[in-house]
Amino acid sequence: MSATTTPAATAAAAPDDVEEGVVLSPKFDAAGLVTCVTTDALGGEVLMVAFMNQEALQKTIETGEAWYFSRSRGRLWRKGESSGHVQRVLEMRVDCDQDAVWIKVEQGGGAACHTGRKSCFYRRVDRDAKGEPLLSAVDAERLFDPAKVYR
Amino acid sequence: MSATTTPAATAAAAPDDVEEGVVLSPKFDAAGLVTCVTTDALGGEVLMVAFMNQEALQKTIETGEAWYFSRSRGRLWRKGESSGHVQRVLEMRVDCDQDAVWIKVEQGGGAACHTGRKSCFYRRVDRDAKGEPLLSAVDAERLFDPAKVYR
Repeated sequence: MSATTTPAATAAAAPDDVEEGVVLSPKFDAAGLVTCVTTDALGGEVLMVAFMNQEALQKTIETGEAWYFSRSRGRLWRKGESSGHVQRVLEMRVDCDQDAVWIKVEQGGGAACHTGRKSCFYRRVDRDAKGEPLLSAVDAERLFDPAKVYR
Repeated sequence: MSATTTPAATAAAAPDDVEEGVVLSPKFDAAGLVTCVTTDALGGEVLMVAFMNQEALQKTIETGEAWYFSRSRGRLWRKGESSGHVQRVLEMRVDCDQDAVWIKVEQGGGAACHTGRKSCFYRRVDRDAKGEPLLSAVDAERLFDPAKVYR
């Protein structure tokens, strides 16, 4: 929205292209990344949270398979390239300010986490008797043996 | 896992405290933040993606209501402080490497997005006839009028 072309009186009602438009214009952060939330298309649970740079986002859209940018390894990463557990993207959404995407996927091999669990979120944050945070395993069954998959 | 105290032969099997332990030890990034995915406890859809610093995470755990750290405003932010649309946290989970949390919330007012929608993810990324990305409104009904809520 440009202040020079939009009269102040109507500014509040004028559509903001980023939030209301039909053009995908990702707001990459200083590191060139947007956040990606990946959920299971069937069950709906959050499988993982990762990041995409411009190339990962483009490849995901073009191929229909999830590509990410690994911050720790500093490189593009096709999900499943080592494990074979590819994610087929059934739907992609973008959020209001376009700094995050949400993909609903069909998870190859049934497990998204490198530890062998279906989801990376296999621990619940509870509180102990003193009110301090304590993690409890939940949905933590291993569907594969990482030592055998990542060799 | 310390290479100096863990024999190489058993290193692969040794539990990694961050991934397998019961201690919450968030891996904050260079800006002091972890990513937070917020889903609707009832329907399961992703409502929003935001960030938490140490204080926001602690306040969320202590109060049972969602607190975030706004990168754009550079300050702690209690969800609903302006709109009244507080998020009651029914469950919190942490991911494998503890750089992201997932909270399942009961969304006060029924809408999490500042645009008035239930979810910030109200646009699907489709492709046009040329294969270029094109956004389509989906679940985009406004549940409140932002102009009346944020004054």
